[in-house]
Amino acid sequence: MLKALLNPKSIAVVGASRTPGKIGYVVLRNIIAYGYKGKIYPVNPHADEVLGLKAYPSVSSIPDEVDVVVVAVPAQEVPKVIEDAGKKGAKVAVVITSGFSEVGNVELENQIVETARKYGLRILGPNIFGYAYTPSSINATFGPLEIERGNIALISQSGALGIALMGWTIMNEIGLSALFSVGNMADIDVAELSELLIDDPYTKVIAIYLEGIKPGRGKDFIEKMTKVTLEKPVVVIKAGRSTRGMKAVASHTGSLAGSDQLYEAAFKQAGIIRAYTVEEMFDIARAFSQQPLPRGENTVIITNGGGVGVLATDAAEFSGVKLVEPSPQLIDAFRQTMPWFGSPKNPVDLTGQATVDNYIKAIKVAVESPEIDNIVILYCRTAVLDPRDLAKAIVEFYEENKVDKTTVVSFVGGQDTYEAMKYLNRHNIPAYPSPERAVNALAKMIWYKKFKEKKKSKQ
Amino acid sequence: MLKALLNPKSIAVVGASRTPGKIGYVVLRNIIAYGYKGKIYPVNPHADEVLGLKAYPSVSSIPDEVDVVVVAVPAQEVPKVIEDAGKKGAKVAVVITSGFSEVGNVELENQIVETARKYGLRILGPNIFGYAYTPSSINATFGPLEIERGNIALISQSGALGIALMGWTIMNEIGLSALFSVGNMADIDVAELSELLIDDPYTKVIAIYLEGIKPGRGKDFIEKMTKVTLEKPVVVIKAGRSTRGMKAVASHTGSLAGSDQLYEAAFKQAGIIRAYTVEEMFDIARAFSQQPLPRGENTVIITNGGGVGVLATDAAEFSGVKLVEPSPQLIDAFRQTMPWFGSPKNPVDLTGQATVDNYIKAIKVAVESPEIDNIVILYCRTAVLDPRDLAKAIVEFYEENKVDKTTVVSFVGGQDTYEAMKYLNRHNIPAYPSPERAVNALAKMIWYKKFKEKKKSKQ
Repeated sequence: MLKALLNPKSIAVVGASRTPGKIGYVVLRNIIAYGYKGKIYPVNPHADEVLGLKAYPSVSSIPDEVDVVVVAVPAQEVPKVIEDAGKKGAKVAVVITSGFSEVGNVELENQIVETARKYGLRILGPNIFGYAYTPSSINATFGPLEIERGNIALISQSGALGIALMGWTIMNEIGLSALFSVGNMADIDVAELSELLIDDPYTKVIAIYLEGIKPGRGKDFIEKMTKVTLEKPVVVIKAGRSTRGMKAVASHTGSLAGSDQLYEAAFKQAGIIRAYTVEEMFDIARAFSQQPLPRGENTVIITNGGGVGVLATDAAEFSGVKLVEPSPQLIDAFRQTMPWFGSPKNPVDLTGQATVDNYIKAIKVAVESPEIDNIVILYCRTAVLDPRDLAKAIVEFYEENKVDKTTVVSFVGGQDTYEAMKYLNRHNIPAYPSPERAVNALAKMIWYKKFKEKKKSKQ
Repeated sequence: MLKALLNPKSIAVVGASRTPGKIGYVVLRNIIAYGYKGKIYPVNPHADEVLGLKAYPSVSSIPDEVDVVVVAVPAQEVPKVIEDAGKKGAKVAVVITSGFSEVGNVELENQIVETARKYGLRILGPNIFGYAYTPSSINATFGPLEIERGNIALISQSGALGIALMGWTIMNEIGLSALFSVGNMADIDVAELSELLIDDPYTKVIAIYLEGIKPGRGKDFIEKMTKVTLEKPVVVIKAGRSTRGMKAVASHTGSLAGSDQLYEAAFKQAGIIRAYTVEEMFDIARAFSQQPLPRGENTVIITNGGGVGVLATDAAEFSGVKLVEPSPQLIDAFRQTMPWFGSPKNPVDLTGQATVDNYIKAIKVAVESPEIDNIVILYCRTAVLDPRDLAKAIVEFYEENKVDKTTVVSFVGGQDTYEAMKYLNRHNIPAYPSPERAVNALAKMIWYKKFKEKKKSKQ
């Protein structure tokens, strides 16, 4: 049933409005404008037509099957709509409407869930901003229209943050496969959505903003998420990890937050990667979405600046990334790629005189060496090497040679450096503004690779 | 003598070149183009004129006093230049040239220091990219030209990273008062430069990229830095804190890195704030440069999104920021500023319906309440409130009311949110892309305020 969310034949929007700015207007407009190819049915008893589409007075009056029903009517009208959609045989109701358990209205929330169960109708929400699934060109949210297409599925328990992050991912060109606002999780929860994505070929990694799981659902959460992480990496930022944050969570989504140690243990058991800031969550998710899993843990740092090389070395040690001790042969090979005063050990320092040619030669050595599994490429803006030239050369080399060693990049500098990193990111090479962030993302990939191998060997 | 670096009457550039791209060309061009008002003397025995200025064959042939001599000639010629500059009575030689102790040429380095000492000439470098002091419109570096003017002094022991950070600060509109590349620190070191800045009215905070202090200089470092931090905050990123990073440092600048515990202890004793990434260093420095020191530790969070409120609450607890428990009166006052379903406790949640008016009213309550010392303003992009309007209103309120409570901001969203944060930053309200980074910067300010009070009370 839930699968209908990803590939619905039709979507009805109950509360579709002709007034710009209204939620029932924005959601319908986004569904149309983002290019959904299935059938779209506005439901509005006071209109014959909304946004150029024939409108219907109710879901049951639609002369066709309805898979997904988006609900954006006042709370007190929702039970009627759910009953109607249930009778019609709809599969999932996406209840955007707020005014349920989050403001103490638990009874109304229970009522819609019970009604839906009668008909086998599933509920996403209530109190959400909608959902999106870009492979089917569905943007059924009241957030920004132009969601960047990609391989990260984002699930948010916070509506405001989720919408804000939509803008953020667009600005930073972070591509999403799916976006789910889960709100009060009256029925469908985070674990079930993650499970849904196991078989989704367009999702490579799942990123979750979590405030808390529902009381009594801990075991189910661990079971489901363990299944998920065997197939796909999951990165979670858990809000409410401090004592006071927990109280804030309780007053925000009403989740029973539970002690952070419990969550920490559950995440560990389930193989979930924990991020501590929103930026970190996307740093890690981006690496997974763009790069193959590490084949092993032996990592080399290639740089043109000693300083960033040292910072990356520090980050590697503290995040558990193993820097390879190159063999004499490998040291010799690296030495051929650099000026005489460079350093062929790890970090491989091509010096501030490094050219595109030095970089590509050193990268080639790393790619061809069986001693090396992963590559960290660092660059500091110098007068002799335009970062945009370097970015282009790296992309060309990786694409021509179909390089499959896990690679992360950090370029430090000004506007042109920023543009170079955008170029790398657009070509699936994750680039970060600081060496520490690049190394941290790689560390989490290596950790996940090991976790997965260990789990699979036990099966 | 060192003060001459900040307000020299004249600067000579030895090795001034007419060939674009050469270091001796770029440095001279930067000095001229950045608007230095003192006298500029190119020194080049093979030219009568360089970049439109009369050139001299040697420093001693300049018919005028020379305060600062920038040296950009090959290493083997440097001793002669130092001798000549010393005889001439120059005060500081800024030796850009590399090829000294960093490549094992210790003797040559000792030689120039000994020569300089004979004449009371001080040496910055060698092996540096130059220096800048924006209040005197001096950009004597071979890095980018348009250094943003401001109140942060940046000292970098890494040349490549320092130059790259020049571009980075320009792109991020981070204003600098001074910028020193210290390189091999043959004579002038980080501690002495920091001391020089104690009385500089244009420097509010000192940010340092440090790889290591010289053997035997530990005690001097602690003594000098303790004096500095009594007057001005110092933020240090210490590279080479891992075992392997230490080795990388040794091969990079040749500093005897020493165990990280020693540095940790030294920093603590001297009241130095430690940052762990380049981004964090600037996050903290920016807050100090733009905001008054906290008057106390009681902090309130004002938000329109529960999620970011929780993330900030978590960050506050883990970084030691005390969130105030508002009195019943204060709770009542906050309640007046928000929709009925908002939360007037701390975090003060104005809800996703919040308008500019709600925000300004809540901020006014916080500013006027004696219970509150510091304010964290958070915002998630919503359809009802354009972040640029909010940014403008905040700036207007702060400027009109001369608000002097320490304030940090985080707006989460897309392009317009990013623009709004740029606007805030330009008006001295430090804004960050994530709530955790805003809270962390405030935490370090509160820590420093307490440190300073404790130290002063002991004097």
